[in-house]
Amino acid sequence: MDGERNESVTILNLVPRPVRISGEGNVPFDGTVRTRIDASLPSEGYRLTTGADGAVEIVGGDEAGVFWGRQTLRQLLGPDAFRQSAQPAKGELPHVVIEDAPRFRWRGFMLDVARHFTPKSGVLRYIDLLAAHKLNVLHLHLTDDQGWRIEIKRYPRLTEVGSSRRRTKLGWGEPDLWDDRPHGGFFTQDDLREIVAYAAERHITVVPEIDLPGHMQAAIAAYPELGNTDVLDTAALGVKTDWGVNPHVLNAGDATLLFFEGVLEEVLDLFPSRFVHIGGDECPKDEWKASPAAQARIRELGVGDEDGLQSWIVRHFDRWLAERGRRLVGWDEILEGGLAAGATVMSWRGRDGGVSAAEAGHDVVMCPMQEVYLDHRQSDHPDEPVAFGWTKTLADVYAFDAVPPELAGTAHADRVLGAQANMWTEQTENQQRIDYMVWPRLAAFAEAVWSPSEGRDFGGFERRMREEHYARLDAMGVDYRRPGGPLPYQQRPGIPGRPFTSPKYDES
Amino acid sequence: MDGERNESVTILNLVPRPVRISGEGNVPFDGTVRTRIDASLPSEGYRLTTGADGAVEIVGGDEAGVFWGRQTLRQLLGPDAFRQSAQPAKGELPHVVIEDAPRFRWRGFMLDVARHFTPKSGVLRYIDLLAAHKLNVLHLHLTDDQGWRIEIKRYPRLTEVGSSRRRTKLGWGEPDLWDDRPHGGFFTQDDLREIVAYAAERHITVVPEIDLPGHMQAAIAAYPELGNTDVLDTAALGVKTDWGVNPHVLNAGDATLLFFEGVLEEVLDLFPSRFVHIGGDECPKDEWKASPAAQARIRELGVGDEDGLQSWIVRHFDRWLAERGRRLVGWDEILEGGLAAGATVMSWRGRDGGVSAAEAGHDVVMCPMQEVYLDHRQSDHPDEPVAFGWTKTLADVYAFDAVPPELAGTAHADRVLGAQANMWTEQTENQQRIDYMVWPRLAAFAEAVWSPSEGRDFGGFERRMREEHYARLDAMGVDYRRPGGPLPYQQRPGIPGRPFTSPKYDES
Repeated sequence: MDGERNESVTILNLVPRPVRISGEGNVPFDGTVRTRIDASLPSEGYRLTTGADGAVEIVGGDEAGVFWGRQTLRQLLGPDAFRQSAQPAKGELPHVVIEDAPRFRWRGFMLDVARHFTPKSGVLRYIDLLAAHKLNVLHLHLTDDQGWRIEIKRYPRLTEVGSSRRRTKLGWGEPDLWDDRPHGGFFTQDDLREIVAYAAERHITVVPEIDLPGHMQAAIAAYPELGNTDVLDTAALGVKTDWGVNPHVLNAGDATLLFFEGVLEEVLDLFPSRFVHIGGDECPKDEWKASPAAQARIRELGVGDEDGLQSWIVRHFDRWLAERGRRLVGWDEILEGGLAAGATVMSWRGRDGGVSAAEAGHDVVMCPMQEVYLDHRQSDHPDEPVAFGWTKTLADVYAFDAVPPELAGTAHADRVLGAQANMWTEQTENQQRIDYMVWPRLAAFAEAVWSPSEGRDFGGFERRMREEHYARLDAMGVDYRRPGGPLPYQQRPGIPGRPFTSPKYDES
Repeated sequence: MDGERNESVTILNLVPRPVRISGEGNVPFDGTVRTRIDASLPSEGYRLTTGADGAVEIVGGDEAGVFWGRQTLRQLLGPDAFRQSAQPAKGELPHVVIEDAPRFRWRGFMLDVARHFTPKSGVLRYIDLLAAHKLNVLHLHLTDDQGWRIEIKRYPRLTEVGSSRRRTKLGWGEPDLWDDRPHGGFFTQDDLREIVAYAAERHITVVPEIDLPGHMQAAIAAYPELGNTDVLDTAALGVKTDWGVNPHVLNAGDATLLFFEGVLEEVLDLFPSRFVHIGGDECPKDEWKASPAAQARIRELGVGDEDGLQSWIVRHFDRWLAERGRRLVGWDEILEGGLAAGATVMSWRGRDGGVSAAEAGHDVVMCPMQEVYLDHRQSDHPDEPVAFGWTKTLADVYAFDAVPPELAGTAHADRVLGAQANMWTEQTENQQRIDYMVWPRLAAFAEAVWSPSEGRDFGGFERRMREEHYARLDAMGVDYRRPGGPLPYQQRPGIPGRPFTSPKYDES
């Protein structure tokens, strides 16, 4: 029976919507929760039964299933269950059996902590928010041109120099506005161990990203020898203060590869995640074209051209990670020039990368910017703050399907591990601004990746949001976008946005 | 025996320093903690014993004492005990008996959430930080010219209008710099109930402040009839965007008093604190001097002049609170013009207000800006961000004594309930900036108000900080000022400060 249609269960207002709810009426609840594992249930699946004896039973396919069942119970207990002070247990629950399991095993959220640093407490808070929505991957974009946020013991200047920038560009393009205050911060290795452990206790995997060979200006600012020193004075670069695709990239010499093997050794020590993200996106080839050293390297390796060189670097780290029992994941540019067999592709520039990768036998995680980039504007209204990208309303995100139409119904669809929503933080300088862009859209995304595609109903979702889930977000202190648009302090008048007006997908 | 002098106990590195530590060697710890109450111990006091049987016993004078004992145990367990992921219990503890009790019953920290809003998660985080330092009062400065942060159900415009400002002045004076982004936010009543409950679970009282009759421009922006409408067009004021003492104040009419009785009714419903702060500071009398209505009110009440009118307003709310079983607390300006018998004075402009109030039989809380205002600069170094006020090094704050020299040894000293350190947030736009100003100085303050004045030793305190307490702050994710000064991103070059160069106290 469907949660949206049966009167006895619509009161549950669960987000994400579970697979099946049956039952009617209410039963007392005395606070007792009995849990056990039944391996015949699906991985991460659970069956929650509210008993007439006042107890709740949660049977999980595994420990994760029990945990997600507990999240469902928390929603049944009312919005106050999401507050951090002890709450009296609700005396009554709906008399139901809820059978549930996720549609996808990779239900992710990417937080860019490089462009604007989110302190540890803010990351732990996001882990709690993900857990409440049954999302199970936190992808941390730890390094970029504008900041290096992870302590690397053997290269202390990465954070000593790379974690601070002297000022920050406001908005996109003209007028040329700046926040002239320095910005920075970084996670110590102990912080990251804590974040990983805190997430693991909530059955969330933290996937680290060290984005290379582009997006590396903060590292080059710290260690100028990592850049193309035969093309420009890399010691003069500094940590980047504005936005956009950056021509200043790593050189491809052995010493640089060795440097990043050193970085990744420490990353592997901190992050048990099987998947390790090495970026690979937006690496302009201008410097390599101008660099005698890069050209010599291309000839030496016999990789043909600059694209071949980039591809060779990616394959180098793919092999390096595989030898250590890990799997490389990268942005869809890593497809260019040939991809190592075990690599996994994050399809961000659209669906095409994911489709070709899946057809070629690679695992894929779908995060097309046209559909699930949460730094994009939430409406066409002129009050939307620093309006960027394509409009993605709550309904748009709700409609997202991780399986691209080209793969639906084919054997390749199994290659889609799942999807993630990505939050880039160029224009979101604090938790309130991040919350505004992420919520409520991440709740819609959670349903898109957890709940079965049958029975998807935006009207029903909106009703559940209105009747109870906004109150849960309130209880969690989320400064979400209200259905009516931004509150005065959520607006950013005068700061130039950059809305995209081209079609989201080329329909030709 | 003194924690600083005995070798067997220096390893404890406790902050704040306990009254007495005895014992030597180590014992195993199996994670067992036995607690009980012994009413013969002092209020908030405790005796912690690590037993040879692997268990720890904490005997408290009351539940608060047990809680503070648990905080001491947490420090004994090592810095990782302050991380939020589950930590394995340490297998060994020093074999000691720790006897401890606070010197003062009011060990407070004031956070200004009006000038810059700290979201709920940030306030809960500060409550955790206070608890770890055995501080027991969180004074929330909830309203000011630049923002109204508490939902009042009967006056929704207070937050609809008063919680946002359109821009924010950077620094003090020239050059005239602005952050042109709107700023705002507020706590719902449910949020405040959660904050109060979360604090109570940690034996911390939340004291609310509604600052009147000055510092009210945000309220006047929301309800222009609250201002002196016969002097200026209060509807044109808006929420204030810059800093300093503000001439625009409340009118003293019956409707305005009634309005704030309505506000306070909701405040009392949310905050069980016996003490309720009504501000009373920095209320320029220019508008009242120019206002025919205010002049008529002065004549009608027979209060002589504008100071008499302010005093009458304070006495009005003092009586109103007393009738409801609460006690008024206000800034030391409330002494001017005569003070109601039950009122408590926060002595901020120096020690004089506290001394006169105590001598006149009032309870006092000492928070002289010369000694414990944490928005004041931490060193004379030019890199200190937006250097304001008098220099207060860590050593200066450590040396603070809540009992003014004029009262020491007199019977009036008993009127000193304790002290608090105040953090005003004009120049601290986020958690990182607030952390920088507050820490490590609040750790020194905590020792000044908890530990006995005998045995005070800054060298020993510094050693405990260096050997272990900085590591605890790291574990709690506190972005404190490093002993060497601000990191690059903690600096604010080019933003004008306003250092005070006058003597802190008039020694004449």
